[in-house]
Amino acid sequence: MSHKVEILSVGTELLLGNIVNLDAQMLSQGLSELGLNVYWHTVVGDNPQRARDAVAIAKQRADIIITTGGLGPTCDDLTKNVLAEAFGKQLYFDEASAERVKVYYQRTGRPMPENNLQQAMLPEGCTVLENDWGTAPGCAFEAEGCHVIMLPGPPSECRPMFRYRAVPYLQALSEGVIASHTLKLFGIGESAMEQQLRDQMNAMTNPTLAPYAKEGECELRVTAKAATDEEAQTLLMPTVEQMKEKFGNLVYGVDISSLEELIRDLLKERGLPLGCAESCTGGLIAKRMTDLSGASQVFKGGIVSYTNEVKANVLGVPQDMLDQHGAVSAPVAQAMAEGARKVLNCDIAIATTGVAGPDKDDRGNEVGTMFVAIATKDGAYVRPLTLGTRPMRQRLRTQTAHHAFDLARRYLQNMPYEG
Amino acid sequence: MSHKVEILSVGTELLLGNIVNLDAQMLSQGLSELGLNVYWHTVVGDNPQRARDAVAIAKQRADIIITTGGLGPTCDDLTKNVLAEAFGKQLYFDEASAERVKVYYQRTGRPMPENNLQQAMLPEGCTVLENDWGTAPGCAFEAEGCHVIMLPGPPSECRPMFRYRAVPYLQALSEGVIASHTLKLFGIGESAMEQQLRDQMNAMTNPTLAPYAKEGECELRVTAKAATDEEAQTLLMPTVEQMKEKFGNLVYGVDISSLEELIRDLLKERGLPLGCAESCTGGLIAKRMTDLSGASQVFKGGIVSYTNEVKANVLGVPQDMLDQHGAVSAPVAQAMAEGARKVLNCDIAIATTGVAGPDKDDRGNEVGTMFVAIATKDGAYVRPLTLGTRPMRQRLRTQTAHHAFDLARRYLQNMPYEG
Repeated sequence: MSHKVEILSVGTELLLGNIVNLDAQMLSQGLSELGLNVYWHTVVGDNPQRARDAVAIAKQRADIIITTGGLGPTCDDLTKNVLAEAFGKQLYFDEASAERVKVYYQRTGRPMPENNLQQAMLPEGCTVLENDWGTAPGCAFEAEGCHVIMLPGPPSECRPMFRYRAVPYLQALSEGVIASHTLKLFGIGESAMEQQLRDQMNAMTNPTLAPYAKEGECELRVTAKAATDEEAQTLLMPTVEQMKEKFGNLVYGVDISSLEELIRDLLKERGLPLGCAESCTGGLIAKRMTDLSGASQVFKGGIVSYTNEVKANVLGVPQDMLDQHGAVSAPVAQAMAEGARKVLNCDIAIATTGVAGPDKDDRGNEVGTMFVAIATKDGAYVRPLTLGTRPMRQRLRTQTAHHAFDLARRYLQNMPYEG
Repeated sequence: MSHKVEILSVGTELLLGNIVNLDAQMLSQGLSELGLNVYWHTVVGDNPQRARDAVAIAKQRADIIITTGGLGPTCDDLTKNVLAEAFGKQLYFDEASAERVKVYYQRTGRPMPENNLQQAMLPEGCTVLENDWGTAPGCAFEAEGCHVIMLPGPPSECRPMFRYRAVPYLQALSEGVIASHTLKLFGIGESAMEQQLRDQMNAMTNPTLAPYAKEGECELRVTAKAATDEEAQTLLMPTVEQMKEKFGNLVYGVDISSLEELIRDLLKERGLPLGCAESCTGGLIAKRMTDLSGASQVFKGGIVSYTNEVKANVLGVPQDMLDQHGAVSAPVAQAMAEGARKVLNCDIAIATTGVAGPDKDDRGNEVGTMFVAIATKDGAYVRPLTLGTRPMRQRLRTQTAHHAFDLARRYLQNMPYEG
């Protein structure tokens, strides 16, 4: 039997538009990978009657209901009550869960508000899903032919709770697998990629090909459905190889999360530490590198030189160069990279300077005018960018950081800087 | 009569988790501002039967249905068919819409695929919502006591189509307004806040009080419904003032987006430039400051000193201090802040050092052990933090950056650093 999953999110903050429903996306992706069909997302607020009605609808059409939100200690957290009631179950006080909540507070050194123990009220006969990432435990039960799994709402809890608690429970329910590989591309737009692939995409059924645009990068997902993972892989691999060949250097990885992850691994392999000097990206490159665990082995640090003074005094960019060319220029980008390489004593340094907006700079450079540079023992290279005046500040910064990482990647993989 | 709105999104890509439902958030926010109650979000895939069933449910419980997605030229775009059918309407070929699609393609210089004219099929008697941001027109009609508005799915089209096409249509339906103010708090947990407010929250109906946890910060939203914005404000302000008094220094702002935004404004007022030295936060503080436009006037830059070498060579942290106390220590945090203040030539410098994980540091300091420091003309101050070993790396970094910003805010507002 093929399962029908409904994701039911409970939270007025979703209906007011205060937050976006990240949980629903994350769960949908994970469930699809398990070969489970998500057919509905529903969101209701912290209103018992509408929550009851939504559960009644879900119970009728789905055979797996996964809820997010409404498990916390505050009085409007009602998910467990409503689900227990819908399936004729009582709530009981789970001593072990209460103990975990107490220990959680002891560790943080904060006093525990008494209402926190409410979180230990759970439907009788359920499997408790221990929450190592917050206080509210999740739970799962089967009743009336329906599997119910309740997860906490904050994405930082929902994500690991799904992965480490719900997935093992769900794997037993899944028949067949959906497997996919994702090629990551930098340097081509989604529509250009899609145009090159359109005929092939339309002709394919298993595996399928799907392009996605992601923050200035592109992804190409190849997905296959089969009885076993092995069979799925056999279906997938020829297409993966064909796409890698077709897009050449534009493909920077398969099943890798980001350019910086690739760079971290390449730096480790080669034993070359990295540093950076950032003007327009203002710390984003350093932040992205240090988002990765293990960064300290390969990333020495960075200089955020948001003023000419810091460019001159800390990075040693010559004052007359700043005066003559302005901060947003190829020579300054190069001098920043060279300066960072020296000051931070690293083998490879990347640098950015440009106009992220919202206004032109004092020399009349348009928003979106950017220079990224790299300095290594083999010399320096500068890539000028014209990213257009339309994208928003954050997007321009993100794309500029991508380009700086792209230079590092090309150096580390012995590829030409362009093409 | 108070309206009940359902947002119905149609698209398999949402159910597969390929994209997040940004439209639902954006529409919810806009509808709330209009004083319209959004009670449900529903997502279904490109499946006619499930779409029909979802429309039948929506029709029964809501009196305004807003759909997103499924208006495009591809064969699985079915929204108009299903909605027209549900309300007993025929589709007709709208010549004016067809002409607009043709002109759109002429402008882009690309040939028009023939299937694009399908987009000009619209429910009889509808108000056409012209799409200046893409090819698929939207439409609106009233039937059987229900208002139906269909908008295209891509957020870059949905957002302006809502704002410039749907809002004027909806304004006529709205009675009264919902207004809210959001207090931002740092230094108190959601459940501690809620416990102090529970009785009051339960007793209130208009305005209402709702606490939210946001990435290590807290929000307290006060919301009122009234005939006019002025009346709503009169309802809101006494509660806002009462809450500010109750939580004192923990409230850092009302209707402000972040600590760094407040700091940017305070620095501007006082004419004091800021700099930073970051170890564990690895560029996050600089990135957050420079996310803000206008940062260049008040933020000089930062040093990301991810190794002891950079702490010593660039920030001038004494090597024997590093040897004796280790990088994760109060003296080093203070020396980093003092070093950054000197090297970057700024009035105020904040610094972070700590163990973000996933592993202990080489001196056995636990994950979550952090020190944040500030250096000013009035001296230096260090706040030690024990954030616990459980939160994930990103969360620890975010909270540490909050604490560093909190020191700067307290200095700029002449408040004690603690309490």
